[in-house]
Amino acid sequence: MKKIIFLLLIIFCRFVVNAQQVNTLKLMPAPKEVVQNAGKFRINNKLVISVQSNATDTILYKAVNRTYQALNRKTGLAFGQQYITPLVTSGSASLLLVVKAAANAGIGVDESYGITVSEKQIVLNAPNTIGALRGLQTLMQLVDKDDNGYFSPFVNINDSPRFKWRGLMIDAARHFISFEEMKKNIDAMEAVKMNVLHWHLSDDEGFRVESKLFPKLQADGSNGDYYTQAQLKELVAYAKDRGIIVVPEFDMPGHAQSWFAGYPELASQPGPYRPGPRPQWQKEHPDPNIPKSTSIADMIANMEAPTFDPTNEKVYSFLDKFIGEMTTIFPAGYMHIGADENNGLAWKLNPAIAAYMKQHNLQSTDDLQKYFVQRMYGIMKKHHRKLIGWEEIYNDKLPADAIVHKWIPADNGMIKSFGKASDLAVHNPVLISDGFYLDVFMPAYVYYNNPAFADANSPNILGGEGAQWTELADNNNIDGRIWPRAGAIAERLWSPASVNDVDDMYRRLFLLSNQLDELGLPHISNYERSLRRLTNGEPIAHLQILTDVLTPVKGYRKLMAAMFKPPQATYQTAALTSVSDIVFVDSETKRKFRHLVKLYLESHDKAVEAQIKTYLITWQQNDAALKPLFAGNKRLMEIEDHPKNLSAAAAIGLDALDRIDKGTANDAAWVQQQSGALDALGKAHNETEIAVIPEIGALVTGHLVAEPVTYSAF
Amino acid sequence: MKKIIFLLLIIFCRFVVNAQQVNTLKLMPAPKEVVQNAGKFRINNKLVISVQSNATDTILYKAVNRTYQALNRKTGLAFGQQYITPLVTSGSASLLLVVKAAANAGIGVDESYGITVSEKQIVLNAPNTIGALRGLQTLMQLVDKDDNGYFSPFVNINDSPRFKWRGLMIDAARHFISFEEMKKNIDAMEAVKMNVLHWHLSDDEGFRVESKLFPKLQADGSNGDYYTQAQLKELVAYAKDRGIIVVPEFDMPGHAQSWFAGYPELASQPGPYRPGPRPQWQKEHPDPNIPKSTSIADMIANMEAPTFDPTNEKVYSFLDKFIGEMTTIFPAGYMHIGADENNGLAWKLNPAIAAYMKQHNLQSTDDLQKYFVQRMYGIMKKHHRKLIGWEEIYNDKLPADAIVHKWIPADNGMIKSFGKASDLAVHNPVLISDGFYLDVFMPAYVYYNNPAFADANSPNILGGEGAQWTELADNNNIDGRIWPRAGAIAERLWSPASVNDVDDMYRRLFLLSNQLDELGLPHISNYERSLRRLTNGEPIAHLQILTDVLTPVKGYRKLMAAMFKPPQATYQTAALTSVSDIVFVDSETKRKFRHLVKLYLESHDKAVEAQIKTYLITWQQNDAALKPLFAGNKRLMEIEDHPKNLSAAAAIGLDALDRIDKGTANDAAWVQQQSGALDALGKAHNETEIAVIPEIGALVTGHLVAEPVTYSAF
Repeated sequence: MKKIIFLLLIIFCRFVVNAQQVNTLKLMPAPKEVVQNAGKFRINNKLVISVQSNATDTILYKAVNRTYQALNRKTGLAFGQQYITPLVTSGSASLLLVVKAAANAGIGVDESYGITVSEKQIVLNAPNTIGALRGLQTLMQLVDKDDNGYFSPFVNINDSPRFKWRGLMIDAARHFISFEEMKKNIDAMEAVKMNVLHWHLSDDEGFRVESKLFPKLQADGSNGDYYTQAQLKELVAYAKDRGIIVVPEFDMPGHAQSWFAGYPELASQPGPYRPGPRPQWQKEHPDPNIPKSTSIADMIANMEAPTFDPTNEKVYSFLDKFIGEMTTIFPAGYMHIGADENNGLAWKLNPAIAAYMKQHNLQSTDDLQKYFVQRMYGIMKKHHRKLIGWEEIYNDKLPADAIVHKWIPADNGMIKSFGKASDLAVHNPVLISDGFYLDVFMPAYVYYNNPAFADANSPNILGGEGAQWTELADNNNIDGRIWPRAGAIAERLWSPASVNDVDDMYRRLFLLSNQLDELGLPHISNYERSLRRLTNGEPIAHLQILTDVLTPVKGYRKLMAAMFKPPQATYQTAALTSVSDIVFVDSETKRKFRHLVKLYLESHDKAVEAQIKTYLITWQQNDAALKPLFAGNKRLMEIEDHPKNLSAAAAIGLDALDRIDKGTANDAAWVQQQSGALDALGKAHNETEIAVIPEIGALVTGHLVAEPVTYSAF
Repeated sequence: MKKIIFLLLIIFCRFVVNAQQVNTLKLMPAPKEVVQNAGKFRINNKLVISVQSNATDTILYKAVNRTYQALNRKTGLAFGQQYITPLVTSGSASLLLVVKAAANAGIGVDESYGITVSEKQIVLNAPNTIGALRGLQTLMQLVDKDDNGYFSPFVNINDSPRFKWRGLMIDAARHFISFEEMKKNIDAMEAVKMNVLHWHLSDDEGFRVESKLFPKLQADGSNGDYYTQAQLKELVAYAKDRGIIVVPEFDMPGHAQSWFAGYPELASQPGPYRPGPRPQWQKEHPDPNIPKSTSIADMIANMEAPTFDPTNEKVYSFLDKFIGEMTTIFPAGYMHIGADENNGLAWKLNPAIAAYMKQHNLQSTDDLQKYFVQRMYGIMKKHHRKLIGWEEIYNDKLPADAIVHKWIPADNGMIKSFGKASDLAVHNPVLISDGFYLDVFMPAYVYYNNPAFADANSPNILGGEGAQWTELADNNNIDGRIWPRAGAIAERLWSPASVNDVDDMYRRLFLLSNQLDELGLPHISNYERSLRRLTNGEPIAHLQILTDVLTPVKGYRKLMAAMFKPPQATYQTAALTSVSDIVFVDSETKRKFRHLVKLYLESHDKAVEAQIKTYLITWQQNDAALKPLFAGNKRLMEIEDHPKNLSAAAAIGLDALDRIDKGTANDAAWVQQQSGALDALGKAHNETEIAVIPEIGALVTGHLVAEPVTYSAF
């Protein structure tokens, strides 16, 4: 009985703590257990870090020194230690790390750690290097500032991840993402305790890896932008230093046009090929028996995409050698073969392949895809790699250790899902990216509430990955496309399922955004630079007041528009410098404003009303302020309606506040009229929309409508 | 006679053109000859680039594609060409490049080019690849914008450089400068047509290059921050693609402490050694016959610095092998051995070296230094490298092809200069960095007017280099330390000596700064990020109003303070995140304000007065606006006096304008009193000072005093 009371006490304590944490801590992802105590450990220039660990644990020492330097930059204090080495140890250190064993990044490695911050010192305990790395990130986020300088609050933290696979997929094929950008993203991944970089390295649009065995892959299969083997190795080591493994993806049998530029003999059709968007998107299908495309779904079904020939033995010997070469670069035990979106049409249209199918009693191109996957499984096995593929690899004969990567949302109206994650996990290990596609421009809360995780309790569900496809992202905007939103995904994958307060997530997400900015991630810098580009160096302050409340239209609408444009330009050649390319998907201003509106509608507090009015007046006046900048600036014509629409919407909001004050807000005709007006003002305009219309609308109707669970992708 | 009139006409035309250029063109460095004609060539999404050149000139094609992509980003137009290759040629191209021969970067290679922009098309003519690369940069700077979109003005340009060596030296030893940062700087160098990256790769504080022959160089001689050979090769190739050669510097026999951490047997004293600032700076000298340091000059003379032992044959065999290894990485025909600031004390204090000197009839340690340089000359000769050294290598027996790198300003009161550049150039090729030290925080005009170039007419003066030493610069602030000021140096080295209008230089320098920002140089981003760091993510607008008119104190005062601080922190461990580390050396606001004050004092124009008042009122009110931000922000205490001082100074300026309006400004007592007050308000405060005090003072006195030619470095 005592034990039960004790347990209840602990649970109660933790509950209390969680409530506190909501108010003051800045940790993302939130730890499993936090007890915050009264008091602050001051950080001054006497800070001494000491490490008790295996002397050869160079990854740990590098991480400690990085943390030390980051703290130095953050606080501006001049610490006395030159460099922290195994030689420098001190029991009385302000920050003591006790690490039991050296370890490398890997799936399933213990990532737990504990932190105690008390009057005496900060102690980080970890069973191994990787746990220590995770704990160091928590420490960085604990450091805060008040009128007396920098400190860490007194805490006891006991933390470990919910899922062992917490990934970010970056597509370096559609647009090449530079080596430097990849490093910045790894830095950010480290900050939120992600542990897998899934690197989409080939697709129709480009082959991005140097092969020494098959040099035409990069020479003919790219526009000159690819990673050298030296760079790949350096990046893998860079990730390893941060507790992150790199899983390469070479997409096959479809999404493979770039392979065939140099090696057309591997394809199902004779070619010639060159890397680039599939020409078939714009081409009417040649087979008169197949109906002309009338919907996106039809178009996908009717698209003859360049595809490996699975009946050609030379394909397998080529891939065997290539995969063998890649294992010397990517030491982690996993390789991703893509295997998605193969409609089989390229196979059906090749009589030799059709004959092969008949001869081998393969009923459909789906059976042929199974055969291809089975062969690739064998090649991976030979090279000691676990095969991963998108969910199209799934079938009842798939070997039990092949990893199925779920991405297709149920009922999407276009492509058949292969089943729920929990169903797939009955047979195979599963990764979830369904609901985690960052490129569909959903606000962070949509990813945070990802329904795919509602019953993700099978131990066969390894975790998931945020996915950034790059048709509409390049080096200039990718950071703002991925971050800070991927922080919400990282938290969903690390923290207990019970951590699900959206408002608190947003509070911490924007703090994370500041932290990443401070670490050097250029998401904010690139946004501001892009605004300067739009104004040709004129001051951006007034433009930013507007763009801070603009968000890109949600879903694939912009991508679809780019795909169906006349072929003079493609999404690959168009510069991604328009307003819709550069504004953040989550408007921080919207979140702050929404919070105020919520408070105000609950309380009618005058101080809150004043804050709301400040926003509204600024927006109302900004139209006039922007006139000189917009005059004669063709690039801003893309958003020419927004300044006056925002101004008009703000005027409605001010009117609503006035009516609430006077008690005349309950006028149904006025509410209907103004709500209708706001709907019109909030219409998307050239792929951007004003994000604060629903909140202004709430001032009119008197109640804040809950946000949609998600938005249509099409 | 006709011919003379014709020539006069040409000269006159060019003069007219230069006057036009001052007003509208944005080129930096200014070309040798420009004729601007009426009319604009419009750039739209029909832009087609065509190249007539050697099909294998991959450097040229890469450069053309980079330009194409940069134009695409700048204009936001969706151009139709996917990738420009030798296969794609069109006589009717909007932009036609005609390049006679392929060429690589090198000293003395023809860098000339011509550009004609007319109704029909843009034509760039160059004798070779390198000239074409230079011309492409001019093209990028020609592209401008008006109410109808983007265009290039009609021009005829005929351009070639004044000097064949236009370098930037970056010290990667004191603070390690990341591989990524180095690339950014190479991008910026390309934009201003610099052609030599001089990379200071070793010094007391760190050995930054991976040696496979002597791995303890980087392992023990650095804090883990060094470039791998793969990175070095990649960077050399990156520079080559941009028409830039890389000249490595390995400093010896002094500035060599980091070599000795792994190889103490090479030093004049037994050690042990570790990389870092010289401990001797703080140490009293042990020899009682040498007077205790009372001045900086004495201190330098009495400093026992870690120095190679020139009497040890093993030193030469070690260096022979090491230099041989480095030639495989740095293909350019030049290597820099430093050889600066060796006071000989470490030699005098070693009895074996003293005995060797006696035995070989070497009268002084200067003779021993000559001997060392002579031996190194032989090693360089063997490896087909021209030896470069700082001017301390100069002596009457120095081989005629050794290059003397001048850096010591005459009459500096501390170190003896080895002679004027024109004198040294009688015997040896000369590079000038005297007057080009970017790390002494001089405004750009000081470098632009560098008196060392007053008589730089000897063909033996190859050119010069801006030099960025990094005791007070690291990855977070180095871009703003070098750029845009290095643009003024680039122009001094490229453009005719007659191009020397400081006001027009500043106009173009800040346009260059915007251009570099657009290209991705993070000097502006880092400044703003650093301000956000100081405010902990609070809005920076009001802080930036202040910091935009703050400049770091000029000269080495901050460095000296850091060197003489108690040893708890050194300039290597202190975070370079204070206000003095992040504000620009040239305040753009100061230049704009100065321009207005100059106009106003000449004209008493009311519209100009209104603009001046806007500045003054903003500054006056900013003190109050900053109060909430400064309260409890310890990091801003560094500049706590500046807001009220700027406010008080602005009030004096407003009073002065008022008196000018009323005709009561001619009050000698008032002038004296206010000028004195301004002097006090303008005092440097913790290593920053308010930059606009002289201009406000001009409103009081009624005349704008010319700025000093230079400022004391000490």
